[in-house]
Amino acid sequence: MVIKPWQGRFEKSAHREVEKYTESLSFDRVLYKYDILGSIAHCKMLAECGIISHEEASEIVGALGEIQREIERGEFVFDPAFEDIHMAIEHRLIQKIGDVGGKLHTARSRNDQVCLDLRLYLRDVILSIREHILEVIRILTDLAEKHVEDVLPGYTHLQHAQPVSLGHHLMAYCEMFARDDERFRDCFTRVNVLPLGSAALAGTTFPIDMEWTARYLGFDRVTRNSMDAVSDRDFAVEFLGCSAITAMHLSRLAEELVLWSSSEFGFLEMSDAFCTGSSIMPQKKNPDVAELMRGKAGRIYGNLVTLLTVLKGLPLTYNRDLQEDKEPVFDTASTIINSLRILTMLLPEISFRTDRMAKVLEDGWLLATELADYLVCKGVPFRKAHHTVGQIVKYAIESGKKLTGLSVEELRKFHKSFEEDVKEVMDVKAAVSRRTSIGGTAFSRVREAIEEVRRELTIRKEDLIGLRSKIPSEWGEVVNE
Amino acid sequence: MVIKPWQGRFEKSAHREVEKYTESLSFDRVLYKYDILGSIAHCKMLAECGIISHEEASEIVGALGEIQREIERGEFVFDPAFEDIHMAIEHRLIQKIGDVGGKLHTARSRNDQVCLDLRLYLRDVILSIREHILEVIRILTDLAEKHVEDVLPGYTHLQHAQPVSLGHHLMAYCEMFARDDERFRDCFTRVNVLPLGSAALAGTTFPIDMEWTARYLGFDRVTRNSMDAVSDRDFAVEFLGCSAITAMHLSRLAEELVLWSSSEFGFLEMSDAFCTGSSIMPQKKNPDVAELMRGKAGRIYGNLVTLLTVLKGLPLTYNRDLQEDKEPVFDTASTIINSLRILTMLLPEISFRTDRMAKVLEDGWLLATELADYLVCKGVPFRKAHHTVGQIVKYAIESGKKLTGLSVEELRKFHKSFEEDVKEVMDVKAAVSRRTSIGGTAFSRVREAIEEVRRELTIRKEDLIGLRSKIPSEWGEVVNE
Amino acid sequence: MVIKPWQGRFEKSAHREVEKYTESLSFDRVLYKYDILGSIAHCKMLAECGIISHEEASEIVGALGEIQREIERGEFVFDPAFEDIHMAIEHRLIQKIGDVGGKLHTARSRNDQVCLDLRLYLRDVILSIREHILEVIRILTDLAEKHVEDVLPGYTHLQHAQPVSLGHHLMAYCEMFARDDERFRDCFTRVNVLPLGSAALAGTTFPIDMEWTARYLGFDRVTRNSMDAVSDRDFAVEFLGCSAITAMHLSRLAEELVLWSSSEFGFLEMSDAFCTGSSIMPQKKNPDVAELMRGKAGRIYGNLVTLLTVLKGLPLTYNRDLQEDKEPVFDTASTIINSLRILTMLLPEISFRTDRMAKVLEDGWLLATELADYLVCKGVPFRKAHHTVGQIVKYAIESGKKLTGLSVEELRKFHKSFEEDVKEVMDVKAAVSRRTSIGGTAFSRVREAIEEVRRELTIRKEDLIGLRSKIPSEWGEVVNE
Amino acid sequence: MVIKPWQGRFEKSAHREVEKYTESLSFDRVLYKYDILGSIAHCKMLAECGIISHEEASEIVGALGEIQREIERGEFVFDPAFEDIHMAIEHRLIQKIGDVGGKLHTARSRNDQVCLDLRLYLRDVILSIREHILEVIRILTDLAEKHVEDVLPGYTHLQHAQPVSLGHHLMAYCEMFARDDERFRDCFTRVNVLPLGSAALAGTTFPIDMEWTARYLGFDRVTRNSMDAVSDRDFAVEFLGCSAITAMHLSRLAEELVLWSSSEFGFLEMSDAFCTGSSIMPQKKNPDVAELMRGKAGRIYGNLVTLLTVLKGLPLTYNRDLQEDKEPVFDTASTIINSLRILTMLLPEISFRTDRMAKVLEDGWLLATELADYLVCKGVPFRKAHHTVGQIVKYAIESGKKLTGLSVEELRKFHKSFEEDVKEVMDVKAAVSRRTSIGGTAFSRVREAIEEVRRELTIRKEDLIGLRSKIPSEWGEVVNE
Repeated sequence: MVIKPWQGRFEKSAHREVEKYTESLSFDRVLYKYDILGSIAHCKMLAECGIISHEEASEIVGALGEIQREIERGEFVFDPAFEDIHMAIEHRLIQKIGDVGGKLHTARSRNDQVCLDLRLYLRDVILSIREHILEVIRILTDLAEKHVEDVLPGYTHLQHAQPVSLGHHLMAYCEMFARDDERFRDCFTRVNVLPLGSAALAGTTFPIDMEWTARYLGFDRVTRNSMDAVSDRDFAVEFLGCSAITAMHLSRLAEELVLWSSSEFGFLEMSDAFCTGSSIMPQKKNPDVAELMRGKAGRIYGNLVTLLTVLKGLPLTYNRDLQEDKEPVFDTASTIINSLRILTMLLPEISFRTDRMAKVLEDGWLLATELADYLVCKGVPFRKAHHTVGQIVKYAIESGKKLTGLSVEELRKFHKSFEEDVKEVMDVKAAVSRRTSIGGTAFSRVREAIEEVRRELTIRKEDLIGLRSKIPSEWGEVVNE
Repeated sequence: MVIKPWQGRFEKSAHREVEKYTESLSFDRVLYKYDILGSIAHCKMLAECGIISHEEASEIVGALGEIQREIERGEFVFDPAFEDIHMAIEHRLIQKIGDVGGKLHTARSRNDQVCLDLRLYLRDVILSIREHILEVIRILTDLAEKHVEDVLPGYTHLQHAQPVSLGHHLMAYCEMFARDDERFRDCFTRVNVLPLGSAALAGTTFPIDMEWTARYLGFDRVTRNSMDAVSDRDFAVEFLGCSAITAMHLSRLAEELVLWSSSEFGFLEMSDAFCTGSSIMPQKKNPDVAELMRGKAGRIYGNLVTLLTVLKGLPLTYNRDLQEDKEPVFDTASTIINSLRILTMLLPEISFRTDRMAKVLEDGWLLATELADYLVCKGVPFRKAHHTVGQIVKYAIESGKKLTGLSVEELRKFHKSFEEDVKEVMDVKAAVSRRTSIGGTAFSRVREAIEEVRRELTIRKEDLIGLRSKIPSEWGEVVNE
Repeated sequence: MVIKPWQGRFEKSAHREVEKYTESLSFDRVLYKYDILGSIAHCKMLAECGIISHEEASEIVGALGEIQREIERGEFVFDPAFEDIHMAIEHRLIQKIGDVGGKLHTARSRNDQVCLDLRLYLRDVILSIREHILEVIRILTDLAEKHVEDVLPGYTHLQHAQPVSLGHHLMAYCEMFARDDERFRDCFTRVNVLPLGSAALAGTTFPIDMEWTARYLGFDRVTRNSMDAVSDRDFAVEFLGCSAITAMHLSRLAEELVLWSSSEFGFLEMSDAFCTGSSIMPQKKNPDVAELMRGKAGRIYGNLVTLLTVLKGLPLTYNRDLQEDKEPVFDTASTIINSLRILTMLLPEISFRTDRMAKVLEDGWLLATELADYLVCKGVPFRKAHHTVGQIVKYAIESGKKLTGLSVEELRKFHKSFEEDVKEVMDVKAAVSRRTSIGGTAFSRVREAIEEVRRELTIRKEDLIGLRSKIPSEWGEVVNE
Repeated sequence: MVIKPWQGRFEKSAHREVEKYTESLSFDRVLYKYDILGSIAHCKMLAECGIISHEEASEIVGALGEIQREIERGEFVFDPAFEDIHMAIEHRLIQKIGDVGGKLHTARSRNDQVCLDLRLYLRDVILSIREHILEVIRILTDLAEKHVEDVLPGYTHLQHAQPVSLGHHLMAYCEMFARDDERFRDCFTRVNVLPLGSAALAGTTFPIDMEWTARYLGFDRVTRNSMDAVSDRDFAVEFLGCSAITAMHLSRLAEELVLWSSSEFGFLEMSDAFCTGSSIMPQKKNPDVAELMRGKAGRIYGNLVTLLTVLKGLPLTYNRDLQEDKEPVFDTASTIINSLRILTMLLPEISFRTDRMAKVLEDGWLLATELADYLVCKGVPFRKAHHTVGQIVKYAIESGKKLTGLSVEELRKFHKSFEEDVKEVMDVKAAVSRRTSIGGTAFSRVREAIEEVRRELTIRKEDLIGLRSKIPSEWGEVVNE
């Protein structure tokens, strides 16, 4: 039977089932290294400020280091009776060094401690996510470069619309991931704030130095209102929101991987290593990885709804409901990181079937816009040109001809502005090349975009290195399993 | 290195990371006993139909029994390379009895097998939830009976509205839980359908007898379209939807427990065993269990959103996205069961502070409606009566008097219909007693309602026993942890 | 300036902006006819019980009828200052017939009145939805019958799996919609309960007869607890939950319509009347209706989340938050009805390109399971047979042959059990015909399923007619705009 | 019958019901002025680039101005047959000036046009929201200043925790709203990007100058990939995500307004102008505005789920599902603006009952932490001090004494370190004053925080003015109705 630190005023001890219902140790143990680091920082600050002696501090810090090693070697006993990771570690600390261990909790509360831990954790997670995002962008950019001049149908409404460069299509996803990177970067600035010192809700009477702790831990700022600090989970919601958009992007990319892997599209083949077979149909090669990546949007959306619901209508300050913040955050972090990581492995193993793409372009329907633009250049108002070409399309369908198969004479029946040079615009590569507006699919524009994204990538990577360098160095990447 | 059963046509084996990303064994192992039971039923049916021999069947069934015991004794090795619980068990089966084990998968696919397992699991879960709901109703009914004549303010807008019986207030929650029970009962009928035999998607060529299997496993019906059967997760969404409403009810009850535990309301005290203290403030006694119960609405709502999102826009039939159905279902099942169970322990340990309730009624504002009704009985149109009493209230506030402290003369200044007998209506218990419409708070009505709910409870319990009796008996209650 | 009925105790009247913020008249006017019908029933009951005179009652009822006609002729002035439809109608009533109009609100409150209105509205909506669902099933069944013997690839993971009957594929959707119908039917029983008489929260002191009102309005039961009755919105959440599943089904069907309309699949063509063109690409014919139907899952899911969020953590009884229940319910009702109705128009206008379906089956990969089953029938354990056929598939791919193009000699290199009769199983129609398990795709089974669904349809329609007949006849179908 | 601009290739015109189902004019008309402004910019750019003549351009621009005035005077006929606001305006344009109007659509498509309109709209909305947020912060800051020295219980778990300054409590909400302001500011930078020129999906062949248009319209950048540009709705999701967090903050503040308005708390009274009464209970004064503000979190969460669901799994580029983006965005914009605006009116009308706050502090339980801190200052380890005070609290409860009522002798029974000076720490104002850590509740700290927030407010306002000045000046604030 564990004696609870707050047992003083209680007559009955907690019911066994209540312990099970209220404990968070089974999931918040993920935070152990952040909890220990936060405690080390707090302890050193207490000594700096003369609240405890330097000898006490170094005894505590030493023991915390030992506890970390115990946990990492799997020797630490996680007894659910300790409620949470904070209590489990503090209990072990006091067990190891006696009463002096009890001084660590001076001038703090679990209310500000758990906020600190979650912020330290999310800092690491966000940097890790950003690294994976940048790697995905790098790979997509390389793929795009390889396929600048491969043309495929561009789709709207999943119907053939206009021919586009495959490189251009791939670069569209770079734009999405680049925005994701920016959103996570903005989120980071709101995560990277020290709440420790807010204590239970009102601040502390001890002469602490929050800015010392912030510097030690690499935080940019300290929180400005203790009541807000202990009840604020905005940074976690924002993280889940950024993740939801990333998950949505992954689901869109995954949808295209699934579509393009189908026998009907046949635009790509994924490596056997990223597919699985069927327990019953021997011919099957299924794009399971892409399907799961698409499906995982569900859990990320759900996690966002979870935390928003928890927070709705909560009065100040800390309420136990807030304990429900952790599992959605942890699950989201590992899901997003794992999906991005698997994507970095899967993308380079894709073979694009550019022959199939070229084949479906042959019928020429995608060139209808070229015909209309041709008329506009001859002075026909756009609306009229569009209508005329619509009738040409109808005629071609009805007479069983391809659009590229119509003679100039046939075209002239619809509008007298058609002349011999119309043949030049009825070419897929020419059609792509002419779309030279900024962000257009012209090969030259796609090459420019690739270069620009690469330049930006360098800057973003330097930004990441800069952020990492401010964070105490002993932490590696978040381990996800 | 595990050889996958579908390895035949593949050149490369799955990437280690792909195995980790796609495996479900780490969570679907919860289904092991349902998977084994389903396999036993399938195997016996195959023998009944002459598809395998009776000797083969009994060898397989025997080995499956051994595997179940291995799992339960913790001796079974769950290697994630086996992808899922189905493969893990089949692999062990073949390891134990050789090639004959390979016959078990005749005439089925993992696509219908996993649907079967999830349906068997949910059947158990729903019966368990219903048992807990009925127990909560029983306890609330007992509490209500004890407090029929204790009066407290009834609230609308969290403002004092009219006095009500505490028993009546408690019985309001019985109504909510009774509806939950009905919804889960309806959901059960749609869960309790056998999909096995739908095979991969199109049914099977083997002469199986699905109705034999259905009878053996206690299913009411068999699915009617194999393509629907393997892609249908409606029953799981419906389960999550029912659970979301129950979680909402729990959050409402929990909100009142938190409110009423506050120093300002002070309407109840929970046992120390259901509260926890503060790591920093020694005087605190926090209603953590109720707060968590309220907060857990978040995860249940989130789980519902998760599965709905997964299913949105999926073409027929099985897609790997469907694997994402399990964690939200498992998490919801254990959360709802645990919350209900802890409620059955917490409720009997509540002390209602009926003295505090009585005290706040003294000022008499809640009796304003009585005054208005009094005037209506004297022939004043309701709207006019209401307006008159509004002015009386304003007068009382301005002159610093309680409503019960006004003399008949004062009242007559507002309307001449007031006479001496008005004093009789200005009594809290009388006010409650007079609300005798069906479902009203009159003590007599509350007692009737308690009796009716109890009668119904008996019928519901018998219904549950009936349902349980049709299900193979070796299964106990779902273990939740 | 409108004088509020509750103005009595107030010094200041509501701020103009507050009126705008709190009014619901701009959307709850949809409920006008339900509000009037509920008032008529209440008024007649008051007279039956002697609470008002029969003369007063008939004056009130007459005036209410006039008000209904004023609204329907567009002559009624909806002034937002009246807050809601209840007040707007009552105000007009008093304007028309003076003080006696003020008697209508005797023994009720807006709290129970609005619940009544919403239940009356949802009753109509649910019956209308069910009628549309049954019509969709009927059309699908007819389509299926027409296409029983047309074969197309059955998909899992959007990969060719096994050949199936197009009729079977279509009947899969009938199963989904049939379950939707059942869920709405179950929901109806929980909607069809009379709350009127619960008054503000505690019941009423007037000697009303709730069962009289229930009979008059065609309700099955009356609510059993007044506090629950005025704060319960379960029936609305359940309605939204049922609708979310239906919206999900519609999104799945729509996804297939979009996919199959693509140039790559080319399995169907929709009538021009259900497609739109492009403002810029003259050749486009877009399946907009299907895309919107798919996208509308979003708003229905969102509406469900809205109401669940509103209800989370609300204490008893009525809180103004509940006003937020209406817009999600109204929007869901009209979206679901409109999507179903447009589906009944769109489906019959689809041309299935069965030639294209037949074409993609030619390569024979979908027959791999047939080969495996062939071996099993020769006594090879399923797992071994499956593996052998996997190797045959690999060999065929590598040697550029179709599966149907392999000679018996080639097959015998992989397993000596292959004999001449293997050619018989390598036929698409034969493969379909052999899947005769219940719910399988064999043509005979599909025809049986069609017959069974039709039999059921008749029963369901009779059930609907029965339910309609119990509801006061003057109400037509819900008007959706 | 309206001839659709894309009618050319169609044989049948759209079904009347299809028009109704697919039209967006009934809601996207909100965008009219943004659509016209975007068209003016586009038209002028076309002339600048020599694609149309300057004469044509000024004819078109003139007619667009007239159309805007027609709409604003209510003279414009919104015929749903025009599908959307873009078509409705273009149709009117051509009606007014003939064929030349047909030139406006050169080099653009509705796909990029609608993105432009939504971005222009959201720019305005975000600036308007930020203005309202800053006004709320200003008002809260003024209120806080007035109440710096008023002390009330600080709550955790809705239990009395430690005494805090009312000013401090109010400033906690300033922190929330300040973060909201930052998130909307970050969102603005991703909204403020020009997509026009991306055309249907691939860019345009006309020699347009996107940077000219961007400068004219005050955009910071142009989109970099046309396929992404027309299918990207990230900026809208991000807007909904920011709004969800703001709605959550509003729900938390509203919850406290409701709680504090209750008879049990009695910490504040809202002006009659912000409350409503009951249709049945004459004494009621309900905090409806706060309840609705709390409840409206539901719709905002729902709107976020809606758009995330719509986008899940959509392949590139434009799909008609995207039309479902508008209603959730419009509804969210007006809800957030209206809630913030009503808050700016409501807050100054609140009377805080500081007497009631002082009264509930008298029992002294909130000073338990002071006792523990006292012991720590005497050298007792925190954990031991906390436990000792817990026992003192228990003793006080059991002996029916207040904590402030214990004598030094009694305290010394629990720990010998208690001395006479303990009386000094047992004072509520002293307890508040001593919490001087950064962000703590000490009066001096609260005053500092107020000053800092005010300094920041000035900077934020200047930022807003700067942003506004870059946007074409003719637009006023978004009109919300």
